[in-house]
Amino acid sequence: MENITFLGGGSFGTALSVMLGKKGSSITLWDRKTSVVEDINIKKENIKYLPNIIIPSNVLATTELDKAIENSKYIVLAVPSHAVRTLCRDIKEFITKDKVIISIAKGIDEESGDRLSQVIKSELNTESIVILSGPSHAEEVALDIPTTVVVSSENMDIAKEVQDLFMTNKFRVYTNEDLIGVEVGGAVKNIIALAAGISDGIGYGDNTKAALMTRGMSEIVKIGTKLGGKKETFYGLAGMGDLIVTCTSMHSRNRRAGILIGKGLTTEEACREVGMVVEGVKACKAFYKLSCKLEVNMPITEILYKVLFQDKDAKYGVYELMTRDKKNEI
Amino acid sequence: MENITFLGGGSFGTALSVMLGKKGSSITLWDRKTSVVEDINIKKENIKYLPNIIIPSNVLATTELDKAIENSKYIVLAVPSHAVRTLCRDIKEFITKDKVIISIAKGIDEESGDRLSQVIKSELNTESIVILSGPSHAEEVALDIPTTVVVSSENMDIAKEVQDLFMTNKFRVYTNEDLIGVEVGGAVKNIIALAAGISDGIGYGDNTKAALMTRGMSEIVKIGTKLGGKKETFYGLAGMGDLIVTCTSMHSRNRRAGILIGKGLTTEEACREVGMVVEGVKACKAFYKLSCKLEVNMPITEILYKVLFQDKDAKYGVYELMTRDKKNEI
Repeated sequence: MENITFLGGGSFGTALSVMLGKKGSSITLWDRKTSVVEDINIKKENIKYLPNIIIPSNVLATTELDKAIENSKYIVLAVPSHAVRTLCRDIKEFITKDKVIISIAKGIDEESGDRLSQVIKSELNTESIVILSGPSHAEEVALDIPTTVVVSSENMDIAKEVQDLFMTNKFRVYTNEDLIGVEVGGAVKNIIALAAGISDGIGYGDNTKAALMTRGMSEIVKIGTKLGGKKETFYGLAGMGDLIVTCTSMHSRNRRAGILIGKGLTTEEACREVGMVVEGVKACKAFYKLSCKLEVNMPITEILYKVLFQDKDAKYGVYELMTRDKKNEI
Repeated sequence: MENITFLGGGSFGTALSVMLGKKGSSITLWDRKTSVVEDINIKKENIKYLPNIIIPSNVLATTELDKAIENSKYIVLAVPSHAVRTLCRDIKEFITKDKVIISIAKGIDEESGDRLSQVIKSELNTESIVILSGPSHAEEVALDIPTTVVVSSENMDIAKEVQDLFMTNKFRVYTNEDLIGVEVGGAVKNIIALAAGISDGIGYGDNTKAALMTRGMSEIVKIGTKLGGKKETFYGLAGMGDLIVTCTSMHSRNRRAGILIGKGLTTEEACREVGMVVEGVKACKAFYKLSCKLEVNMPITEILYKVLFQDKDAKYGVYELMTRDKKNEI
């Protein structure tokens, strides 16, 4: 079996480590925080980010980057999207030509609007990059609950390698050649999930949320195709599938943050209470900027931007979305 | 304000009566059951089908069909899909040319595979038929929770009339010219909701359900476009929107029935326990037949058919769906 390294001991990285560890791979998990590393090595549990899951003995954690990377061909970047560039700079000297970089974060670079595979490519100067995305809450992956994801790459041979590496009876991995679509779908859905959470927090119903999600889906397709992605991808696992799971599950931090904002907390207070990175907040800023630049109409993103960063009243924002003038659906 | 008649005192018909009554219309609600009629007229509550909602004084119930219909231009058929044909035969003699028939059921005719608007047209020999569909749980509509629906017709002028008739600040009505799409979307989504409920009942997770719903969506598009509907409609409120609300809300009878089947009850036991008509059971039979006839591959519908009617093990059925051979997503 292969050696696989996870850089970042968050919930999803840990869950995949558990799954691949059980499959038989030797896993090295790097994290900056000594407490996380010690919990994994000594208590066999990532108490802070994935409690109540036993970590198999072939998953070993370390705080040393160089040692974490040296013996593995597969390097999984398992940090939040905004930390990907810095992590790449930190590992650059250890990344030899034979390594395959796998990214599991969902977001885009706020500054440049670049997709994460573009960030990785420019920082690490490699083409062996695979993006893994889809509806896959960590808590369920760790419990072997049936889950489907997609992998994509500019080099589909490597994507297929990663497909085989991650595939199990319960964790089903599909390939999709539309790298842009896979990356953009995963990033934008967090914006819609935040908005859906706000609707829940206000006390609106399932009817309201379904309407928001349906309109949100068309927003994903509009910006996504403008950026070069394919409609089919957005209507697949990395778009619609992930949108659904993020908008409806209490496992979703984006949804949870939205609920708190809908109940009256500020963006900062909500993020602090959720305690982990809320990707939708960053994605909203980045995609609002992009939509202005590319002149793509994204009403949910725009109103959410005003709610998050300009003190717009959330309840009125959702109401505005629901009562827009439009009379014909399509 | 207009007089509007609802034929059928189920939850959705009652909820729309409450909403339109509050808007100011005079509503006549017909039901076969004396108990329902008396509860509405005397207790101002439909205790059996929509408890805890106060019915406005301008909603009056009756058991007399002819009197219910005579003074209204707008006749809303608010019975389950399998009862539409019989109801049409019962009211035929009272339907004059000036009446507008509005259908709010979701399903197709099991025998013929006809859409409900086709059934109504052939039975009542009228073209003034409007279909109303979309993500709209009765319990939320009655509480004025923001809700969006679509109306469609072969005669869009009449659809626009009905749009104005039903539109409020909280109940948003859009027109959509794709009558076939609106009808088929609303019918097939109940099949997927049953399957999603089964997955929940087995104890599978949000990841699993999101995967099922995403594949279900592509099944809706496949059969729906084959029948002449438009993709955009299926990705809109009457397709995706309604699919989401039906698969994720505990208000959904289809989902609730699925959960019970997933927990081991037979189809009959589950339907009895839910206590109201479970449209997905009938839709599954009808669309399985249609998919065989039209040679459209509908794996979820097919496996659900075997679970519902041929004692196939539900858990193994979902597992089979998750582990099909396919390796590329699109």
